[in-house]
Amino acid sequence: MVDQHDAVEVISAKRDRLELSDSQIDWVIDSYTRGAVADEQMSALAMAILLNGMNRREISRWTAAMIASGERMDFSALSRPTADKHSTGGVGDKITLPLAPLVAACGVAVPQLSGRGLGHTGGTLDKLESVPGWRADLSGGEMLTQLEDVGAVICAAGAGLAPADKKLYALRDVTGTVESIPLIASSIMSKKIAEGTGALVLDVKVGSGAFMKDLGDAKQLAETMVALGNDAGVATVALLTDMATPLGRTAGNALEVREAVEVLAGGGPSDVVELTLALAREMLAAAGVDGVDPGDRLADGSAMDVWRRMIAAQGGDPSAELPRAREAHVVAAERDGVLTRLDAMAVGLAAWRLGAGRARKEDPVQAGAGVELHAKPGDPVQAGAPLLTLHTDEPERFERALASLAGGVEIADPGTPYPRHDVIFERVAG
Amino acid sequence: MVDQHDAVEVISAKRDRLELSDSQIDWVIDSYTRGAVADEQMSALAMAILLNGMNRREISRWTAAMIASGERMDFSALSRPTADKHSTGGVGDKITLPLAPLVAACGVAVPQLSGRGLGHTGGTLDKLESVPGWRADLSGGEMLTQLEDVGAVICAAGAGLAPADKKLYALRDVTGTVESIPLIASSIMSKKIAEGTGALVLDVKVGSGAFMKDLGDAKQLAETMVALGNDAGVATVALLTDMATPLGRTAGNALEVREAVEVLAGGGPSDVVELTLALAREMLAAAGVDGVDPGDRLADGSAMDVWRRMIAAQGGDPSAELPRAREAHVVAAERDGVLTRLDAMAVGLAAWRLGAGRARKEDPVQAGAGVELHAKPGDPVQAGAPLLTLHTDEPERFERALASLAGGVEIADPGTPYPRHDVIFERVAG
Repeated sequence: MVDQHDAVEVISAKRDRLELSDSQIDWVIDSYTRGAVADEQMSALAMAILLNGMNRREISRWTAAMIASGERMDFSALSRPTADKHSTGGVGDKITLPLAPLVAACGVAVPQLSGRGLGHTGGTLDKLESVPGWRADLSGGEMLTQLEDVGAVICAAGAGLAPADKKLYALRDVTGTVESIPLIASSIMSKKIAEGTGALVLDVKVGSGAFMKDLGDAKQLAETMVALGNDAGVATVALLTDMATPLGRTAGNALEVREAVEVLAGGGPSDVVELTLALAREMLAAAGVDGVDPGDRLADGSAMDVWRRMIAAQGGDPSAELPRAREAHVVAAERDGVLTRLDAMAVGLAAWRLGAGRARKEDPVQAGAGVELHAKPGDPVQAGAPLLTLHTDEPERFERALASLAGGVEIADPGTPYPRHDVIFERVAG
Repeated sequence: MVDQHDAVEVISAKRDRLELSDSQIDWVIDSYTRGAVADEQMSALAMAILLNGMNRREISRWTAAMIASGERMDFSALSRPTADKHSTGGVGDKITLPLAPLVAACGVAVPQLSGRGLGHTGGTLDKLESVPGWRADLSGGEMLTQLEDVGAVICAAGAGLAPADKKLYALRDVTGTVESIPLIASSIMSKKIAEGTGALVLDVKVGSGAFMKDLGDAKQLAETMVALGNDAGVATVALLTDMATPLGRTAGNALEVREAVEVLAGGGPSDVVELTLALAREMLAAAGVDGVDPGDRLADGSAMDVWRRMIAAQGGDPSAELPRAREAHVVAAERDGVLTRLDAMAVGLAAWRLGAGRARKEDPVQAGAGVELHAKPGDPVQAGAPLLTLHTDEPERFERALASLAGGVEIADPGTPYPRHDVIFERVAG
């Protein structure tokens, strides 16, 4: 039961830079979920929040009200602690695929509710759906059984979690009100807290391929989310990580699954391995498990074993050949030198235009489409040698994909020094 | 034909404090009118405009786009110049009633499209409808004939003028986006310019009973509207006038018509006479007519003659007895002294609660309801002598009307000096 308020009163308060009361926030989220506050009222409020901000108490209450709009999951009956990871989204970000089974192999259950890709960043469910037979939709009971038996599950979120967020996110998408740290933080955290995980590690991406282009904004978002999680009793930590260039050497659905399997087999690109291990250590620590080195579980094959059981439990065949695109186009280096830039956004758009992503929610994706990277920033390259390979089933897509790469690749004179840095910039804890 | 844009692009530009281009403004107004831009997108844009502003070029283009959304009237076939007056709304503001016939009696045609009251300010059409038989709705042809024959017409605006404004105004009303000078100015001026008047005098009210409480804000609004009018070829002038206390000695429909007739008969409260004459002189000057003193036309009965013909032309009986409310309640002065405050908002709310105004568009109003003022600020009062008389057909309304007067009346010690000032604060010209 919430107090009675009026939409214009709440909107006007935020418009006039006043703090919203708990009661105003509860009322407006509840009324919006029920349809008593109209879309045009909520979008005006969202714009006022975007421009005038919310303080920590307001964001915390806003998040709580969105959680209260739906059901909460509960994993307290499991015999193991739980930990989840959320990435704010990047290009080539397949980390969830090796990470979930790796952490499960270390004794922590990973209930990973994932989404599909929209725009230039891929979706974890789209990637896994390139595995023949694998299905994303599980009931709550199936999810719990798999968590107990296998230790890891990656599946679609049910409609019951934070329905207010679902409605508000769709509204923000069409009203220019996405770019608000309070609204982004509460959207992510309402779903993660409602999901019922005991610990949460956030991978907040920074750079051209990320939502946050700027380290300062990314840090503010990370701090906001870490505070929200800890306030709600979820042990939460964030890593700020590089998204100026794609993660690993692939962007695309089956291409990324193949790379994830390489990591689980003890190989794979060093940045993907580095970030996977760092996030695994954070998840174990946040879940209160120590004395286990995730590097050992990659080396001894136990993470690969969980992967195969996790895929099989959801109908997938872990031994099946992954789909390959019918057509390929190689982009060669135009000169000898050092690759100094391979822009994440350019590669992400190219992969999207090749068919790996979708423009509208209802579009299908191509399992085999995407971009392979044959060099990473800092690598020497030779004129004529392959730099990228573009994959698609529809060769008419190459032209627009190549157009999106224009300006995204820079090769400097041979010997030009390139300042390498870690994929992890900073750690944010409560 | 307008260029293609995207609602999120236009909203995001204003959100990020960029100037909107002419093409963006034309597109968004046209698309909103047609329904291709949704209410929730327009309300987010309205909030961004409210918080981030628009410059003079943007406001001018926004106004032009709203005019272009509908039809324009044309009075160029008339044998006389035209002039109109617009008030931003106040309590007891019956000025249009004596002003329109007075200016017509001076040789300038007055095409006055008016509205109905909502909230604490009354509507001119509601007032005139207390005259038995009078009707507000005229066709364009009837309006033109009456302007030529009688010289003055006060009627309802047709639906064809600035439909974008009509739609946007209703949206702003429910989304906390009314209080924006660019949006208020363009809303008023789009209707007045589309109406086709050659000259326009704005009465911008300032004080507790007005929309603008502050002289600085009122002046900014006046300057914006004067610029918009002159840019569009309408000779436009504004007066900033006092709305701390009601105009004249009545607030209510038939009560105000009776007071207007007193003014036309050469009597009436001095503030109403002063403001009517000042506005009449401004309208004549803006219409290019000089050598005529409106004071003479009040004195010689020619303004009253136009009034009677104007009422009769719209089916009204100018000789009919005006309705009176069935119940009256006198509020007496509580002490001897000087009335130092009689708050316009308090009186406006009381009149509204007595039945003179409406809470929702579809509500009826009482012709006889309202408040009579027996003293004005600066007047000496005696304990027990009548200060106000409340009128209504429904005596159960007295209690809430009295509650709204609480704190609105102040009587100081006898002999306390009261600084009287003119009803007109300032004149704003192009």
